[in-house]
Amino acid sequence: MRIDILSAVPKLLEGPFSHSILKRAIENGVAEVVIHNLRDYAYDKHKKLDDYAFGGGAGMVMLIEPIERCIDKLKAEREYDEVIYMTPDGELFNQKMANQMSVNYKNIIILCGHYKGIDERIREHIVTREISVGDYVLTGGELAAAIVADALIRLIPSVLNDETSALTDSFQDDLLAPPVYTRPADYKGWKVPEILLSGNQKKIDEWREEQAIKRTKERRPDLLD
Amino acid sequence: MRIDILSAVPKLLEGPFSHSILKRAIENGVAEVVIHNLRDYAYDKHKKLDDYAFGGGAGMVMLIEPIERCIDKLKAEREYDEVIYMTPDGELFNQKMANQMSVNYKNIIILCGHYKGIDERIREHIVTREISVGDYVLTGGELAAAIVADALIRLIPSVLNDETSALTDSFQDDLLAPPVYTRPADYKGWKVPEILLSGNQKKIDEWREEQAIKRTKERRPDLLD
Repeated sequence: MRIDILSAVPKLLEGPFSHSILKRAIENGVAEVVIHNLRDYAYDKHKKLDDYAFGGGAGMVMLIEPIERCIDKLKAEREYDEVIYMTPDGELFNQKMANQMSVNYKNIIILCGHYKGIDERIREHIVTREISVGDYVLTGGELAAAIVADALIRLIPSVLNDETSALTDSFQDDLLAPPVYTRPADYKGWKVPEILLSGNQKKIDEWREEQAIKRTKERRPDLLD
Repeated sequence: MRIDILSAVPKLLEGPFSHSILKRAIENGVAEVVIHNLRDYAYDKHKKLDDYAFGGGAGMVMLIEPIERCIDKLKAEREYDEVIYMTPDGELFNQKMANQMSVNYKNIIILCGHYKGIDERIREHIVTREISVGDYVLTGGELAAAIVADALIRLIPSVLNDETSALTDSFQDDLLAPPVYTRPADYKGWKVPEILLSGNQKKIDEWREEQAIKRTKERRPDLLD
């Protein structure tokens, strides 16, 4: 999978892909993440990326031209499954979407807004899918784009090894994950549930299943519907 | 507001706070973000932060001791309103929570999980609030912590100037934001709605209100309930 991320502030994206699991996936050639600086596609002398909104009001709006130019260049190089715009009024991202996207998409473009957002005409004519990571507003789309890239890449086979396995994650079977414990069994009087020390794998598995259902009922009954 | 973020892979958090709006807020002393490397609190010779889960199964679990040690040190230095753990089974983060937290909290600790998660006893005895940024699973809590910090800091008065104002954001009045447009008025035949060029501010404001309601009805009718 190749993910091209377009940003006006690409330095915001420095951390997430340069360390830990995503770094390994990229080094192993399983995933490719290419970050593009939209300013490289702004051809006027001030490298302007935004301008005032028509109709007045606070907030700068990102110009069509640099974004279109960058996307046109990419599309001339390869086929893309989707041009995704990260926006709080997009379709709410969830684990089911992550699973589908991770399987179905080979190349995607993710466009990050900044300032007040992008010119609506980009959304009408160029963007093919709009995604939100949650009902909150951020200073830009960069963290949201990093979240989508992270969630997709970790699902690619071979990215997670046994020690970081995705199979028992929350949401994979519409249940939250059960609690986990590690050494020591007794930490200043805080004890691990006896059953986990019993060595009876069948009982342990049953307990985990019960705990997952109990936790989902308590915290997210909506997932059980 | 001071935000202490505890992580096993602090380099993942390099980008978001070193550029653009958050950088300015930190430089102006309006917000303070301190990132702690949990490995500095792992005292055994391998600086071990995790171990296998009791009861078997895939996934490493983060140890209690380094986390407790780091939090104890911070708590000895100042009072914290909350010790927040980022986890997909936590309370779903939204703009209303961001508004409340931004006003009510002076100092918070945000703990990022990594690997399979943290020992449940930390959640029972040390963590005071559990937050999820959405129904998906990430390689770690770092991006989620950055999202919460970003959403809170941008709401602090003076962080956003008029050009990036939060007042007309999505969710601030339970409506999605209306479409925005900027120059040119005609881009290759893609035209800006006439009304926005009319100069009639009253009509423009009415149009924006209508568009916000229309967009919310189409995309997120749940917000209108």
